[in-house]
Amino acid sequence: MKTGIIGLGLIGGSMALALRNIPNNKIYGNDKYNFEKALSLGLISDKLTDEIIPEMDLIILATPVNTLPQLALNILDKIKPETLVFDVGSTKHKLAKAIENHTNRHNFVLAHPIAGTEYSGPEAAFPGLFTRKMNIVCDTEKTKPEILQKALKIFDTLQMKTIEMNSNEHDRHIAYVSHLSHISSFMLGKTVLDLEKDEKNIFRMAGSGFASTVRLAKSSPATWTPIFLENKEPILQALDEYLDNLNDFKAMLYRENHQKIKETLTQINYIGKIIDDIS
Amino acid sequence: MKTGIIGLGLIGGSMALALRNIPNNKIYGNDKYNFEKALSLGLISDKLTDEIIPEMDLIILATPVNTLPQLALNILDKIKPETLVFDVGSTKHKLAKAIENHTNRHNFVLAHPIAGTEYSGPEAAFPGLFTRKMNIVCDTEKTKPEILQKALKIFDTLQMKTIEMNSNEHDRHIAYVSHLSHISSFMLGKTVLDLEKDEKNIFRMAGSGFASTVRLAKSSPATWTPIFLENKEPILQALDEYLDNLNDFKAMLYRENHQKIKETLTQINYIGKIIDDIS
Repeated sequence: MKTGIIGLGLIGGSMALALRNIPNNKIYGNDKYNFEKALSLGLISDKLTDEIIPEMDLIILATPVNTLPQLALNILDKIKPETLVFDVGSTKHKLAKAIENHTNRHNFVLAHPIAGTEYSGPEAAFPGLFTRKMNIVCDTEKTKPEILQKALKIFDTLQMKTIEMNSNEHDRHIAYVSHLSHISSFMLGKTVLDLEKDEKNIFRMAGSGFASTVRLAKSSPATWTPIFLENKEPILQALDEYLDNLNDFKAMLYRENHQKIKETLTQINYIGKIIDDIS
Repeated sequence: MKTGIIGLGLIGGSMALALRNIPNNKIYGNDKYNFEKALSLGLISDKLTDEIIPEMDLIILATPVNTLPQLALNILDKIKPETLVFDVGSTKHKLAKAIENHTNRHNFVLAHPIAGTEYSGPEAAFPGLFTRKMNIVCDTEKTKPEILQKALKIFDTLQMKTIEMNSNEHDRHIAYVSHLSHISSFMLGKTVLDLEKDEKNIFRMAGSGFASTVRLAKSSPATWTPIFLENKEPILQALDEYLDNLNDFKAMLYRENHQKIKETLTQINYIGKIIDDIS
């Protein structure tokens, strides 16, 4: 089996490490910026050149989400009839739209492994990144059944729990449970950094709670800027609701409405039950 | 040595567990709600009744911050001349103000150990909670030198790193690095819970990033409602700056200003260096 991976950062690099355990699987890779580093780290065996793309049995697209539509079209032009191509991007709708009329659309699986850390690049890759993580596959009725089965078998090998979803629905929901968390964390980081310019040593007062809340503010701008832009509309909606809730809280605090604040926080505590199951 | 602890939740209970290692230290405690549980968990040896308060060498106040001013005044009325009293509250200015004219003000140390978890109550207490954590002591010029030395020795025993600060400055800074994190996390939790009413299973899509950002939304409303109210003005200011940053981000996203978003996120990444030192 020959696997080609385009984009060798945290996600693509971890895919390379996890999939080389499949017997007789040779991993080829390419990355505009990280190829040499990925090769020297041993993530891949060889370079995925344009010439050998038609030889691949599996191609994984792991570049920033804004580059995926054009890249997917280019790759679908070159593959064998039985080749599986899947992406691992955090937004799905625009990519789905871009490839919908391609002759080889049925060779493609839109996938989103809910896996990542706040670190990026080939150095951050590790083989267990996907173990027991959720994986969302979208619009699967547009993939050939035998190709979809091949994909599901690979996701099983990675020990992911795969669920299906419409690509629009995916983008709307992921805006809330992933993209909004990143924005809230980045802007919290900014708020405290802005203050720190004048008030040296404020960070000496920060504890583990602050560190946890602001952890995602370490995430890669090269990855996240395109995600925010690609999923603009759902994110703007989620952000408006978040702003409404913050403004409501501000009003309660301004009016010193002890009872209302306590009730609100108590209702939110319910999320503890849910996140204990996730993390 | 006799130590009395009033308030036997996460912080007071952990103080009890950490300080019973001091040789010949008997720990008395009281708590309006948690006394029986704390006794049965073995956090304390005996009940701290009003009658035996004058026998204590050390008294720690670990009740919700809104109850501290009156409690501190009552306790200062009853102590021996060499008794050390300290609180462990997350806000300092109002308490400082309340006790400033008490005859025994110089027996009191305003302390804030930057330690906690998202869990609460005596069951959440553990002896290592304070180990290698920051501890802020305020307005120390108002404490008798020999009492202050006694306090610093106890904080050393707990292996805390103690720094000094003015109580107003403390409240202004802690609004940014602690209280604002809690609000951002609570309101993020609320935003996603509100959506989940209509969209079942959205939490199946949440990953470890969401869990980390929303972790503080599990915090105790009984502890945090009074903290928010006691530190109202500094929090409202921090919240306004956070709202400004979120609105700026929203405008950049609305205008699809790729370059500006990427630059902003890149600048915020600097916080990674800082939080790696904290957590």
